[in-house]
Amino acid sequence: MAQRMNGVLDPVLTPVKRDLTPDAERFVRHCRWLLSHGCSGLAPFGTSSEANSFSIDERQALLETMIAGGIPAAKLIPGTGCCALSDTVRLTAHATKLGCGGVLMLPPFYYKNVPDDGLFRYFAEVIERVGDSRLKIYLYHIPQMANVPLSLGLIERLIKAYPSTVVGIKDSAGDWSNTQALLKAFAPDFAIFTGKDAFLLQTMLGGGAGCITACANVNPHGLSALHQAARSAMAEELQSQVTRLVTLIDGRAYFVATYKGIVAHYAADPGWLTVRPPILELTPQQQNDLARDLAAFGFTMPGLDAADRHSRPAA
Amino acid sequence: MAQRMNGVLDPVLTPVKRDLTPDAERFVRHCRWLLSHGCSGLAPFGTSSEANSFSIDERQALLETMIAGGIPAAKLIPGTGCCALSDTVRLTAHATKLGCGGVLMLPPFYYKNVPDDGLFRYFAEVIERVGDSRLKIYLYHIPQMANVPLSLGLIERLIKAYPSTVVGIKDSAGDWSNTQALLKAFAPDFAIFTGKDAFLLQTMLGGGAGCITACANVNPHGLSALHQAARSAMAEELQSQVTRLVTLIDGRAYFVATYKGIVAHYAADPGWLTVRPPILELTPQQQNDLARDLAAFGFTMPGLDAADRHSRPAA
Repeated sequence: MAQRMNGVLDPVLTPVKRDLTPDAERFVRHCRWLLSHGCSGLAPFGTSSEANSFSIDERQALLETMIAGGIPAAKLIPGTGCCALSDTVRLTAHATKLGCGGVLMLPPFYYKNVPDDGLFRYFAEVIERVGDSRLKIYLYHIPQMANVPLSLGLIERLIKAYPSTVVGIKDSAGDWSNTQALLKAFAPDFAIFTGKDAFLLQTMLGGGAGCITACANVNPHGLSALHQAARSAMAEELQSQVTRLVTLIDGRAYFVATYKGIVAHYAADPGWLTVRPPILELTPQQQNDLARDLAAFGFTMPGLDAADRHSRPAA
Repeated sequence: MAQRMNGVLDPVLTPVKRDLTPDAERFVRHCRWLLSHGCSGLAPFGTSSEANSFSIDERQALLETMIAGGIPAAKLIPGTGCCALSDTVRLTAHATKLGCGGVLMLPPFYYKNVPDDGLFRYFAEVIERVGDSRLKIYLYHIPQMANVPLSLGLIERLIKAYPSTVVGIKDSAGDWSNTQALLKAFAPDFAIFTGKDAFLLQTMLGGGAGCITACANVNPHGLSALHQAARSAMAEELQSQVTRLVTLIDGRAYFVATYKGIVAHYAADPGWLTVRPPILELTPQQQNDLARDLAAFGFTMPGLDAADRHSRPAA
């Protein structure tokens, strides 16, 4: 149990420069802010990170930069699941050798309707080829993006075959009945993270490990307060605040662009607005509306606005 | 018009060795057989090629091997569309520099429900970054795998912005009304290939360019006979034969495995059976049933069984 991650992990936004190359300086600065404002760990190269919009080389270079920049590898579970077996093996072996606490692994997501036997064989090949007893895999279930769901039967087979390697899951399906079934079948030994802010309290009460959500990029303080107080009298009120915030944020534009827009606003740093296509950055109107609504809500990102205002590079 | 591809193009199966690495020798041999049995060109690294199960390095190396092995680059439109802008640019620039007749480009397929403006910006970035006037793009519409459809409006914008670059499309949606709408809007200047064998005759009569289908891996002779005779009295009978064959083949197992099984059988070369996970190879029972049914149908792969029997390497 001691080796399992828990708490609020953030799928770190990946800032990019105007030429669309990764912006390592803003990236490392954001990671430091997240770890000092409530995140117990980071899950870079997730869906909110635009991970699949970057090449393997770009992802490896950014991970090395993070660690060189002082982010403890043990607190990281980078996303390493690609369509190609060879890419997943390469990223997973790289992260494991760097000492990462684990990896967050999408299933291969191009081929649809493949049988569970095929998915099992894929994960088994990755584990055997990486061949490193330090490897800890957190599976990543996000059928609305991957369109390749991870069934309970498949998860059970993987845990049984590789009990010290397949140690957890992020459930981003947004379907409480699935998270509930996972909790019932596998918690607490298997670390179950919800990918939906509104489910954090229920997940904790069901024996889950925590959350990995886009909103942790801007509200690590609110989410970690809830995580820590899950069994206190304040829990429901804290959950309500978390849920109201994410409800206010969602549905305006593509969510990655929206979260980058929030960081851009509170850091007073328009360099954060840029996204890689096919995602589009917020329009000035969307950015203004977002800022107005968040101000009306009373939302703040403590330590971000003041601290960085005089030390950031030109956009 | 002279620069547009037409006819039967094959999305070449990618043979792999037992250790799952690409088998360049079997690959080049299959390409030669295809070009000498009716294919007017090849579309390696398509869906039937398990393209997304291979890394960028593996795909580049195989393309170089094909061309070094005597396959004319002008007859090739390799798949180059990846999730990551940087990967798509790299593969597309590489294929273009090698003199390929064009590239077949999937949209970025991880992020779902992105706006057409975002997809337009993605393709525009690829074209601008490759920056090579020789580049010819054939778009690849396969919503059942990519889950990112290419709308008529998007295609129209791309043709208008890049008329000498965006020159065709493969429509693999399997929905005749979409192919029909494409033909009506853009044929014959824009080269429209169907991805469904059963639509080849209708596509040709509507002013389309031809087909790019998995079945061309085993039936290039039948498909090219139909392509050439589309305006003859024999056309309907030839289409009927093509359709009956693919109906016999489909629905047994994952289609990539089935087509590899057919080549394995007719080449008497079990080395062809291997697939990369998450796809699974045929079971011996599936392989036997397939061989029996194809024999009963009277199907043959002329020149494959006899020619290769004494020159193939060990599996």
